[in-house]
Amino acid sequence: VPHQVLDHGFVRVVDYMGDDAAICQAARVSYGRGTKSVQNDEGLIRYLMRHWHSTPFEMCEVKFHVKLPVFVARQWIRHRTANVNEYSARYSILDREFYIPAPEHLAAQSGVNNQGRGEVLQGEEAQRVLNLLREDAMRSYDHYEAMLAQDDNQQGLARELARMNLPANIYTQWYWKVDLHNLLHFLRLRADAHAQYEIRAYADAMCRIAADWVPAAFAAFRDYRMDAVSLSAQAV
Amino acid sequence: VPHQVLDHGFVRVVDYMGDDAAICQAARVSYGRGTKSVQNDEGLIRYLMRHWHSTPFEMCEVKFHVKLPVFVARQWIRHRTANVNEYSARYSILDREFYIPAPEHLAAQSGVNNQGRGEVLQGEEAQRVLNLLREDAMRSYDHYEAMLAQDDNQQGLARELARMNLPANIYTQWYWKVDLHNLLHFLRLRADAHAQYEIRAYADAMCRIAADWVPAAFAAFRDYRMDAVSLSAQAV
Amino acid sequence: VPHQVLDHGFVRVVDYMGDDAAICQAARVSYGRGTKSVQNDEGLIRYLMRHWHSTPFEMCEVKFHVKLPVFVARQWIRHRTANVNEYSARYSILDREFYIPAPEHLAAQSGVNNQGRGEVLQGEEAQRVLNLLREDAMRSYDHYEAMLAQDDNQQGLARELARMNLPANIYTQWYWKVDLHNLLHFLRLRADAHAQYEIRAYADAMCRIAADWVPAAFAAFRDYRMDAVSLSAQAV
Amino acid sequence: VPHQVLDHGFVRVVDYMGDDAAICQAARVSYGRGTKSVQNDEGLIRYLMRHWHSTPFEMCEVKFHVKLPVFVARQWIRHRTANVNEYSARYSILDREFYIPAPEHLAAQSGVNNQGRGEVLQGEEAQRVLNLLREDAMRSYDHYEAMLAQDDNQQGLARELARMNLPANIYTQWYWKVDLHNLLHFLRLRADAHAQYEIRAYADAMCRIAADWVPAAFAAFRDYRMDAVSLSAQAV
Ligand SMILES: Cc1cc2nc3c(=O)[nH]c(=O)nc-3n(C[C@H](O)[C@H](O)[C@H](O)COP(=O)(O)OP(=O)(O)OC[C@H]3O[C@@H](n4cnc5c(N)ncnc54)[C@H](O)[C@@H]3O)c2cc1C
Ligand SMILES: Cc1cc2nc3c(=O)[nH]c(=O)nc-3n(C[C@H](O)[C@H](O)[C@H](O)COP(=O)(O)OP(=O)(O)OC[C@H]3O[C@@H](n4cnc5c(N)ncnc54)[C@H](O)[C@@H]3O)c2cc1C
Ligand SMILES: Cc1cc2nc3c(=O)[nH]c(=O)nc-3n(C[C@H](O)[C@H](O)[C@H](O)COP(=O)(O)OP(=O)(O)OC[C@H]3O[C@@H](n4cnc5c(N)ncnc54)[C@H](O)[C@@H]3O)c2cc1C
Ligand SMILES: Cc1cc2nc3c(=O)[nH]c(=O)nc-3n(C[C@H](O)[C@H](O)[C@H](O)COP(=O)(O)OP(=O)(O)OC[C@H]3O[C@@H](n4cnc5c(N)ncnc54)[C@H](O)[C@@H]3O)c2cc1C
Repeated sequence: VPHQVLDHGFVRVVDYMGDDAAICQAARVSYGRGTKSVQNDEGLIRYLMRHWHSTPFEMCEVKFHVKLPVFVARQWIRHRTANVNEYSARYSILDREFYIPAPEHLAAQSGVNNQGRGEVLQGEEAQRVLNLLREDAMRSYDHYEAMLAQDDNQQGLARELARMNLPANIYTQWYWKVDLHNLLHFLRLRADAHAQYEIRAYADAMCRIAADWVPAAFAAFRDYRMDAVSLSAQAV
Repeated sequence: VPHQVLDHGFVRVVDYMGDDAAICQAARVSYGRGTKSVQNDEGLIRYLMRHWHSTPFEMCEVKFHVKLPVFVARQWIRHRTANVNEYSARYSILDREFYIPAPEHLAAQSGVNNQGRGEVLQGEEAQRVLNLLREDAMRSYDHYEAMLAQDDNQQGLARELARMNLPANIYTQWYWKVDLHNLLHFLRLRADAHAQYEIRAYADAMCRIAADWVPAAFAAFRDYRMDAVSLSAQAV
Repeated sequence: VPHQVLDHGFVRVVDYMGDDAAICQAARVSYGRGTKSVQNDEGLIRYLMRHWHSTPFEMCEVKFHVKLPVFVARQWIRHRTANVNEYSARYSILDREFYIPAPEHLAAQSGVNNQGRGEVLQGEEAQRVLNLLREDAMRSYDHYEAMLAQDDNQQGLARELARMNLPANIYTQWYWKVDLHNLLHFLRLRADAHAQYEIRAYADAMCRIAADWVPAAFAAFRDYRMDAVSLSAQAV
Repeated sequence: VPHQVLDHGFVRVVDYMGDDAAICQAARVSYGRGTKSVQNDEGLIRYLMRHWHSTPFEMCEVKFHVKLPVFVARQWIRHRTANVNEYSARYSILDREFYIPAPEHLAAQSGVNNQGRGEVLQGEEAQRVLNLLREDAMRSYDHYEAMLAQDDNQQGLARELARMNLPANIYTQWYWKVDLHNLLHFLRLRADAHAQYEIRAYADAMCRIAADWVPAAFAAFRDYRMDAVSLSAQAV
């Protein structure tokens, strides 16, 4: 079942390989008969996470089907250690689906953080912004269709050109496959408070998926990465 | 000096490491004293290319500064074996610069190739399309500015949200650094007739740059990759 | 069931994700509703292979358990697009198992190809070589054990140091996980006549595994890569 | 000038691209006109390191020539985000050079850490071990040469086979090229107390090189990575 994200998006697990036990199985190849005490799986996973022994986490793999706005896709695709197949707007016509923020996520520019949000917009300003976003999306899409149309009057513009009229809040889709180590790295950066809310909404859904899929690994990740505190040499 | 590409874009070499000689230097590490005859550099490079000995080509590196429309950037970024820093539309305000195709590149959808272009649009249709692209770009940008504006009436929408109103033909910029093997792989896919004209325009400029930078390697690449013909087992 | 390779080695599939259908499923995400005719899976896979549309092949993943001589491992590990966990000779004691070539693989240095083999060694020379390989392996291992031994007379050398006395034909083990595109790239280079016989023996076993696992993809790979012929621009 | 490492090894910088200023140059592309205050380079670099903004560090590249024992090369090559060309023992004949630990590095197996060293071996045991290492290295090499020899009595074993008789302390060489972000990642793991002394000796030399090359980045790396302390959620 897909996890709904934002107004029209989702994340859905298509397939996966391995689980907490597969991490341990791989780690134990390294240790061979050298492992004296039979350490339990959870303890071993916590040990690996604590000491940055990341390769056993690469032994698990997961494939997602994701529907997401283009501006989120542009941030997401920067994570290069993954496999991707995206809907082609050269080949096919995009759907009339745009991300319009819910009122509580329509935030002002932060005054202190150049790369962040401030308070939620209120009243008339909020309304003005929502209207502009909605109208521009609809008008762009109308014109997209108009340019594509083939009839007696016109040949129809190439899809690969027409799509450049569409704004970055239009939805796209892809299959995204990644190993667990790099998924956790993605989540660390994108479920973080510095990430833009919209990609964080996807990362949060994927955190819930990961917590179900590999509970021990995800708990260790929370303790030693997400919620850990790092003190610089100078702070120490 | 930057190479101009499309209406407002460019590719500019910021820095590079190595050249034809560096490829040979690395290849000769492998051969050690085993190399009986002193093969000349060009011959060695052709040999390496022909036999897919790709790692010596990874010993050269180049860094570009590129200005390009967002829909081109979306295709380009799919090449994961590179290093990238892009202008942040969360952090800063984008410029009012949009790609508007020259009349001779305003093509109809191909009837035979789903992912391609047909004839160039003519007369009224061409004019209609150009007007729509120009007007929508300007209106979107006007509204982008309007949503961002901070004054007595409004706080100003967060930049990371306002930018989602902007269409995919707006320009962005980045630094893009890559090794020669993966640059050639990029060029093979993107200077190819199946690639969209707009990214091909960048790839063509980079072919010229590569031909200057590493003439022997680029000539071998042309002969054994770009202009080579592959016959399947069945065709043979 | 493991595939036996060389005298003590094996390749065994531990797990896999996806198959021919998964390649098509991912490719069809790209095409969306644009795909007019329902092309069959095999035809689609051949199309993707022919046109170097490699990302759908990355949607399949396979995990092997491999036992192999160290000198083979040294060639294999050069393929970076994979996930690996190897038996640790710092942590554990290696087994007394060495690769000794079967008589028919004990070949002379090639006179024409610096990186290749000539005729099979015969008679006394073959015997001399086999004796040296066997004796040196056994003696090195005896000394490895002697240096490690802890008793009243000695503390025992650290395992990470003692192992440096062991020759490159000793066996090691690892888990090796890779996506199908990069597996095929590996097989292309390592099931090839230029590869050393010993790694080719593993690649051949893996070709059989792949042919079972993804028959359409493997057949396309054979036709368009392994058994294809490439003509340079000059040859054309 | 090469930095001498171990008894016969070295690390030598062949070429590099970029420096502290190049990191900032790339980071500033992202910030565009958004950067209000002109933050100085050092402050910016510290900020990037602290917040795991790692891509600007990828904008620097360095190429090393390294001579190192095979067992060190086996650990080193596990770092996949680099470009490598190694001396080929299929193509050429290896030199008679072996790593023999200095007496102060001839350590016993640790009693508490399976993957570590204990006290330095003393007296007769140390002597016995050194003798075994030296004699086995010399004998293996004598036999390597004997098997390779071509004369009236014998054709000479293929180099790719003969080399499997050589122990893991023989020296090899390679060119190794990497970006600064991944070099620092390598140094973090390999200049660490958990790494085997022999690879640490190389990492230490490379730390000195990096401190000269990119002083601000290396200082930030020391403070926020190498010498930082991480407290788990539970510890906090
Ligand atoms: C004409 C054309 C049409 C296209 N149409 C579509 C489309 O409809 N939909 C779509 O989604 N894409 C499409 N693409 C993009 C295409 O699928 C590739 O993403 C893009 O061409 C980059 O190629 P690459 O993966 O070989 O390059 P790189 O990412 O630079 O990779 C080079 C090689 O490095 C290895 N590699 C790098 N990163 C990884 C990793 N994380 N995991 C495993 N191996 C890795 C692989 O061996 C790979 O072949 C199209 C491309 C072209 C040229
Ligand atoms: C809050 C936030 C703000 C950001 N702001 C900006 C910005 O303003 N501008 C901007 O350009 N980006 C920005 N980014 C994107 C950021 O720079 C990274 O591109 C993105 O986070 C992916 O991280 P990564 O490189 O670690 O992941 P991956 O690409 O998945 O890489 C993981 C690791 O694999 C290795 N690796 C993978 N591919 C390569 C390769 N080709 N070469 C070398 N090593 C490789 C590296 O060790 C890397 O650390 C921002 C990200 C965040 C989270
Ligand atoms: C003290 C110590 C003990 C060790 N013991 C063992 C052992 O017993 N057994 C053993 O097998 N290894 C062992 N290792 C090796 C270890 O597992 C790593 O292989 C090695 O440290 C390289 O680290 P890396 O993967 O982070 O580096 P790189 O390979 O340089 O990768 C950097 C980052 O890039 C990304 N990346 C690069 N390539 C890929 C890829 N193909 N797929 C996905 N992501 C990729 C990942 O995000 C990765 O974290 C040990 C290492 C150390 C330091
Ligand atoms: C017959 C034969 C002889 C050989 N002789 C020698 C020799 O004498 N000396 C020697 O050193 N090696 C030798 N090699 C090894 C060879 O140079 C390659 O290292 C090995 O074949 C792996 O190939 P690859 O790099 O394509 O594979 P992978 O490492 O799996 O990479 C696949 C693709 O992914 C991309 N990629 C992955 N990682 C990176 C990265 N870190 N940076 C940039 N791009 C990346 C590249 O596009 C690459 O083509 C030999 C190999 C063969 C088959």
